[in-house]
Amino acid sequence: MNILLQYVVKSFDRSTKVIDFHYPNELLQEYNWELADQPQNLEEILMHCQTTLKYAIKTGHPRYFNQLSTGLDMVGLAADWLTSTANTNMFTYEIAPVFVLLEYVTLKKMREIIGWPGGSGDGIFSPGGAISNMYAMMIARFKMFPEVKEKGMAALPRLIAFTSEHSHFSLKKGAAALGIGTDSVILIKCDERGKMIPSDLERRILEAKQKGFVPFLVSATAGTTVYGAFDPLLAVADICKKYKIWMHVDAAWGGGLLMSRKHKWKLSGVERANSVTWNPHKMMGVPLQCSALLVREEGLMQNCNQMHASYLFQQDKHYDLSYDTGDKALQCGRHVDVFKLWLMWRAKGTTGFEAHVDKCLELAEYLYNIIKNREGYEMVFDGKPQHTNVCFWYIPPSLRTLEDNEERMSRLSKVAPVIKARMMEYGTTMVSYQPLGDKVNFFRMVISNPAATHQDIDFLIEEIERLGQDL
Amino acid sequence: MNILLQYVVKSFDRSTKVIDFHYPNELLQEYNWELADQPQNLEEILMHCQTTLKYAIKTGHPRYFNQLSTGLDMVGLAADWLTSTANTNMFTYEIAPVFVLLEYVTLKKMREIIGWPGGSGDGIFSPGGAISNMYAMMIARFKMFPEVKEKGMAALPRLIAFTSEHSHFSLKKGAAALGIGTDSVILIKCDERGKMIPSDLERRILEAKQKGFVPFLVSATAGTTVYGAFDPLLAVADICKKYKIWMHVDAAWGGGLLMSRKHKWKLSGVERANSVTWNPHKMMGVPLQCSALLVREEGLMQNCNQMHASYLFQQDKHYDLSYDTGDKALQCGRHVDVFKLWLMWRAKGTTGFEAHVDKCLELAEYLYNIIKNREGYEMVFDGKPQHTNVCFWYIPPSLRTLEDNEERMSRLSKVAPVIKARMMEYGTTMVSYQPLGDKVNFFRMVISNPAATHQDIDFLIEEIERLGQDL
Repeated sequence: MNILLQYVVKSFDRSTKVIDFHYPNELLQEYNWELADQPQNLEEILMHCQTTLKYAIKTGHPRYFNQLSTGLDMVGLAADWLTSTANTNMFTYEIAPVFVLLEYVTLKKMREIIGWPGGSGDGIFSPGGAISNMYAMMIARFKMFPEVKEKGMAALPRLIAFTSEHSHFSLKKGAAALGIGTDSVILIKCDERGKMIPSDLERRILEAKQKGFVPFLVSATAGTTVYGAFDPLLAVADICKKYKIWMHVDAAWGGGLLMSRKHKWKLSGVERANSVTWNPHKMMGVPLQCSALLVREEGLMQNCNQMHASYLFQQDKHYDLSYDTGDKALQCGRHVDVFKLWLMWRAKGTTGFEAHVDKCLELAEYLYNIIKNREGYEMVFDGKPQHTNVCFWYIPPSLRTLEDNEERMSRLSKVAPVIKARMMEYGTTMVSYQPLGDKVNFFRMVISNPAATHQDIDFLIEEIERLGQDL
Repeated sequence: MNILLQYVVKSFDRSTKVIDFHYPNELLQEYNWELADQPQNLEEILMHCQTTLKYAIKTGHPRYFNQLSTGLDMVGLAADWLTSTANTNMFTYEIAPVFVLLEYVTLKKMREIIGWPGGSGDGIFSPGGAISNMYAMMIARFKMFPEVKEKGMAALPRLIAFTSEHSHFSLKKGAAALGIGTDSVILIKCDERGKMIPSDLERRILEAKQKGFVPFLVSATAGTTVYGAFDPLLAVADICKKYKIWMHVDAAWGGGLLMSRKHKWKLSGVERANSVTWNPHKMMGVPLQCSALLVREEGLMQNCNQMHASYLFQQDKHYDLSYDTGDKALQCGRHVDVFKLWLMWRAKGTTGFEAHVDKCLELAEYLYNIIKNREGYEMVFDGKPQHTNVCFWYIPPSLRTLEDNEERMSRLSKVAPVIKARMMEYGTTMVSYQPLGDKVNFFRMVISNPAATHQDIDFLIEEIERLGQDL
């Protein structure tokens, strides 16, 4: 306990490192991690815990901006400890009575917030947004061709899914897994802000239909991974309605904005979706993992996935069997992911999540306002951030006077990786970078930890300049 | 902390109830579980924790025999708390350096134990055995037809998977999800002990080939869910070799026996498998979830699933990229499931797991020896249990003199559900029941908690008789 609590305290202390980085071979050689026949004593076990935490990333550190999931909420953490202690599975009410009820209550509340009448519909907590998106694809396919369950894809015409070129790679992963194939995922063009262009969507749908293929799913993104862009959901909904296509919204990252009266307009139209992925473990700071798939039509998920295993879902039990929700899952055993979200929600209230979201978005705007006109920075796209994603290049002094040609691009592409490597070696902060399309490596700043402050943003800028000025 | 530790202490106390059972509507009405706008204070939050645990099943209680996953290992629990505290994701070395290394070390050790030379091969911890089995199916399909990734199932001949009629339903769930279809999963006949009959397997493979279909996977089970049966892996391996079919072994339940020198012969032939599912969260008592898929051929998993997302798997990082293992997963974010297994292994040693497994199997044999000749019991199948599964009917006095006809069967089918309902209402113990094929509801006793003793087995028998004698 002391080891863990010390780590928590350190995570919030800006004078500690975000990471004590060592190369894989160093770590492998420095310690003996091997598994042996003989037991070790308590002292050794505690030492392993300390060593593990010594080299861990402090994902709760206010200067850790590397991923969409950051921060360490104490109520969420306590709830996750309770979940571990209860150590049960979500398949039946019989063995997880309270957790099953809390899943019911929480999913219903999330559907209400999405805007489905009375919070009706269905849903599940799944192991991450990629699986939630795959569920959506499965359910959309089943809705159109229920025979796929028994007969497989061979009995179906060629199905086509549409999503934007900025959407998450899990759509393609899902299509590969489900036997649809990545060639059948059409990537729709985006505008310069990373939003799907509805006219291109309609054009590609018509093109697919002309070839005799069957458009079955449009996955719009609310909060893209890199730009934080929101696809125009109302326009997408109109097109889906016109062509009778399942509308999925991947709001894994953007869903949190639904908690904010100030920002939820960015998801206008989400209420017209057939299914929504929403990951509270991202913008809402719930400990990993907590991802929900919400489905507007009730019963579909159950019909799509159920196999009626009689050893688990006995039909002659003494309680209401509608609470045995396990058969709607693709998993058999399913980890309890709901309690940490539910308890945080009770502790913060909807208004607490709203304040959390508003604060992170305000910090992103603060960063944007500082660097948009600052010497040595170029924005990847113009305009205020819609989410907390701020995408920019840092241009070291030696590159500032160069002409905008291939050589400059080539040199610029090497800047972010070197600064990032130095950040990790110093352990002072972490922020992600990537290329995208024809844009060479740029920084993608994201903020989901409400413990961050203006001073932490200032620090990041100073640190980038300190570590990059000689490049 | 106190609330959690009190719960742990109570879990081990035989005088406390396994469950304080309430019907769903009672629980929903008794408390206000709703999520509101306004926050609640710490006192209320702590009360919610207490309430949640009050109605939870004590899965660590020595008289909880309801599922394959039971028990509460203190080192495993501490490790799970540390995992929650570290709150990170498995996609890259960058953000989970130690956990990525521990996954590497642990999976290699598991492959060594399976018997693959030098522990070579590949693997992943996945969210449960159903997903591990689905991975195996995906990888087997990809090995034979790599074009499936881009082209989907439409480009392939009809694929057929084979598994026994006693196998886990996740094989069918996987086939439905992957676009193969449940009709293409052929269920092979079992002998009276629940083991797959190799000659029937070969017959069905030939039949499929004659129809022009392509057999691509045989999933043998090592430890079936209900009978605890081990399929004859050597004979299955010969058939798979002869017809060049991917051999998967679903050892989700039986894999733990590989830790025991006394019992591992039951999995002879597992070393010839192409892939193995092995859930340490079952027989080895690791907290939920901890399921591994092991693959003999290296690289296949990566090729099958990778999508090269450049925002996550940058190719110009400053460390050895082979440790960025996230792209081989179907998930994007992946929960850290390895640490609790690794730490338990260090604390118990292989010999500790061996003692755990041997003890549970000894307890099952103790139960079998008591009831096989006891008045009022009938065994579902003859012979000593191979795993800890003991399957039996309790015959109340009123049924003992009846002829073996339909009326008796019909009355017998109602006995187990009533006893189970009474067990839950008294909260004294829990054991599962189910029908199977033409066999009406029978009890399936399983033991995976090493805290159980002979006295707990005696108690179970007395409790069944106490609760069932009037039926």
